[in-house]
Amino acid sequence: MAKITPRSEDFNQWYLDVLREADMFDYAPVRGCIVVKPYGWTLYENMRDLLDRRFKDTGHSNAAFPLLIPMSFLKREASHVEGFSPELAVVTHGGGEELVEPLVIRPTSETIIEHSYAQWIKSYRDLPILINLWNSVVRWEMRTKLFLRTMEFYWQEGHTAHATHEESWAEVTQMLDVYHTHGVEDCAVPSVKGRKSRNERFAGAINTLSVEAMMGDKRALQAGTSHDLGQNFARAFDIKFLDRDNTEKHCWTTSWGLSWRFMGGMIMIHGDDQGLRLPPRIAPIQAVIVPIYKSDDEKAKVMEAADRIRLTLKAAGIKVKLDDRDETPGFKFNDWEMRGVPVRVEVGPRDVANNSVALARRDIPGKAGKIFTPQEGLADKIKGLFDEIHASLLRQAEAFQKANIREANTWEELKAGVQEGWVLAPLLDDPAVDAKLKEELQVTNRNFPFDQAPASGTAW
Amino acid sequence: MAKITPRSEDFNQWYLDVLREADMFDYAPVRGCIVVKPYGWTLYENMRDLLDRRFKDTGHSNAAFPLLIPMSFLKREASHVEGFSPELAVVTHGGGEELVEPLVIRPTSETIIEHSYAQWIKSYRDLPILINLWNSVVRWEMRTKLFLRTMEFYWQEGHTAHATHEESWAEVTQMLDVYHTHGVEDCAVPSVKGRKSRNERFAGAINTLSVEAMMGDKRALQAGTSHDLGQNFARAFDIKFLDRDNTEKHCWTTSWGLSWRFMGGMIMIHGDDQGLRLPPRIAPIQAVIVPIYKSDDEKAKVMEAADRIRLTLKAAGIKVKLDDRDETPGFKFNDWEMRGVPVRVEVGPRDVANNSVALARRDIPGKAGKIFTPQEGLADKIKGLFDEIHASLLRQAEAFQKANIREANTWEELKAGVQEGWVLAPLLDDPAVDAKLKEELQVTNRNFPFDQAPASGTAW
Repeated sequence: MAKITPRSEDFNQWYLDVLREADMFDYAPVRGCIVVKPYGWTLYENMRDLLDRRFKDTGHSNAAFPLLIPMSFLKREASHVEGFSPELAVVTHGGGEELVEPLVIRPTSETIIEHSYAQWIKSYRDLPILINLWNSVVRWEMRTKLFLRTMEFYWQEGHTAHATHEESWAEVTQMLDVYHTHGVEDCAVPSVKGRKSRNERFAGAINTLSVEAMMGDKRALQAGTSHDLGQNFARAFDIKFLDRDNTEKHCWTTSWGLSWRFMGGMIMIHGDDQGLRLPPRIAPIQAVIVPIYKSDDEKAKVMEAADRIRLTLKAAGIKVKLDDRDETPGFKFNDWEMRGVPVRVEVGPRDVANNSVALARRDIPGKAGKIFTPQEGLADKIKGLFDEIHASLLRQAEAFQKANIREANTWEELKAGVQEGWVLAPLLDDPAVDAKLKEELQVTNRNFPFDQAPASGTAW
Repeated sequence: MAKITPRSEDFNQWYLDVLREADMFDYAPVRGCIVVKPYGWTLYENMRDLLDRRFKDTGHSNAAFPLLIPMSFLKREASHVEGFSPELAVVTHGGGEELVEPLVIRPTSETIIEHSYAQWIKSYRDLPILINLWNSVVRWEMRTKLFLRTMEFYWQEGHTAHATHEESWAEVTQMLDVYHTHGVEDCAVPSVKGRKSRNERFAGAINTLSVEAMMGDKRALQAGTSHDLGQNFARAFDIKFLDRDNTEKHCWTTSWGLSWRFMGGMIMIHGDDQGLRLPPRIAPIQAVIVPIYKSDDEKAKVMEAADRIRLTLKAAGIKVKLDDRDETPGFKFNDWEMRGVPVRVEVGPRDVANNSVALARRDIPGKAGKIFTPQEGLADKIKGLFDEIHASLLRQAEAFQKANIREANTWEELKAGVQEGWVLAPLLDDPAVDAKLKEELQVTNRNFPFDQAPASGTAW
């Protein structure tokens, strides 16, 4: 079973090996694009559904906007078109004819959405508008990195319009909190909330917030961004409303997005040298039952009990699978460990006789993770284990993050620190500082954490 | 409230008026494309989720395949490219450069999927593959008809591969049954299951089955198709497997799809001159609470009770909305009738005093649909009503369909019948017959119903 390169040997190869062996993806015939196979897509759907629930609980509705945008729309907001032009996929022919105006496949939907908002919004009574889209976008990109960098990627993009900056800013920070909470409570992924530097803002935004998560190789992954668009897009698309005071004003808009990149990050955070380790709340298969027998007679009895247990767990709402393949238990153990299933249920002849089972936790390897328990009350026992496993994965990720953040108060400390992991330093929000970090240290300013004290006048 | 044209006056205008007044859509800046607003999209999501559950219950998994397909892929299956070429949107430039090979936006995914299946399938052990995709596709189309005909449309496409034709044919018929059952049990839409004529088959299929539903103007709507692709695509994409008998064979593949067109059809079937009438199992809002009061004192008491009722219904899993706008009850009644909310809950001062409410059914207009009932046990009462309303909408649609199908045994009877509605006639499966129907009577052969006796030799 030496199909997976150890993490410590080559992290990128480890990541690729894990995704391949867990049968999550395939490369597509178009460079930069990937096929997401059922196990990978089900994981994405589970994460999506939990995040979607959080959007709805904060008053948002989903909608659908077209895939194709007139080229001229992108040109309306000057810094927006500058940011996205080099990445566009352009449709020049349709229905057998050359188009008068080329269309682009959406790289993001601000322009077409704010165009609609300009038609929909007339009065303060029409505000706020709180809409989210689940879709895929295309940004020309040839250096594929699975889920982290692909030409077409799936994501959600929220787009809201408000009467005042106070309200739109509250939305921007609320959605950052939603991303952070989704990470912690659904995916066992801790992250650092903060504000992006001027230089790293979204094209067209007056402020960009991000949550940054630390992956297993100590690199940072932007796990969601929330943009304060100020009135920039409202001016470009002429989104005005008649306010209570009877004067016409431009709206304040926001956008916020999280892509399948976060799924890649989650895998990089929790996975180990045996493969995936999936948090139970998002796992496609939460518990797998492995029957253990030698004779045909044993097999009949064990399979009967295993199937009964499967039905009980299923009825209790657990995503359970009974592995009835003609393979050895050892093969099955490895296979499901690689796929990150949180709990394994072993049923053998002695278990049948004693009305018991053995449980194995994916997060604790070997005997330490083994639990012998009666079949009675098994569903509740396993549900309790799910919460424990979630908490244990979260604790491990938090401890790893904490152990790999150093504080620096001088350039020399910063220089030494970035060799070891993340560094918390009192930087100025100045493009010259961002440039110096990239040139001299080959690192980026990820964000200014909310709980960090503002930088003094030191001109780093 | 005369915003909606009567159905009897102009059915197409009625449909447009209903969708506009229910705030379901907007036109997009690209011709042929539409924006689906939250009320419309939530309805689509509800239908999608129920159908998705049925796919999963029959053993299918979702996956994701790329939006962009190399032009050369479409050319591999001769009749497939002939069918889709005139409708393609073509990407010729990406990342600022002209592409060596143009890419098309998927008009459907058979080619790219069967290309992947060829890599994945080696042995009979890899079969069957049972995959479904939820996505949007683009087919160049300028004559927009909301949800029924749009350039970009949302749908699902299932793609399966099997070892034998017996198995693939069982899949083709099973999925037609799934569509039929989804119509009847989730959407209160009855339909006729049958086989398409040779002439109307999917480009590349050896057989196409369909479910056809009768809309309010007695026109037919294809509410789902299921294709037997035989070995055509397997040969074109070289999908072979080593069978148990140690010989290499081509797979048998299927595809099946249902688009948001079915949502349009459902609206055309149930709607009336007051607007939408939505079956409760798919309605975005299942019950709306309208508070009724005159004085501020009454308002305080009524709103307190209304909000308590809202929380009770919500806790019971009912999608409920309390309409607290500053508008008259009459305005609100009309508004929610137009949006098709199945049950209205009226709460006035007398209801507060008596711990009662008045319920109004959307499917039975006026006093006949009014029910006075205690607040105690209200959630169960309303859930029971949902089942009754579903059954009543289904009965009405079935009766309408039955009343508008005539039998014909001669060309003269057929000619007279098509003026009145659908006609059941013993046609031959011959392209010449299909052509004669179109030319002489301007009608199409929708399908050969499964329960119809095979045609005799009569050469109509």
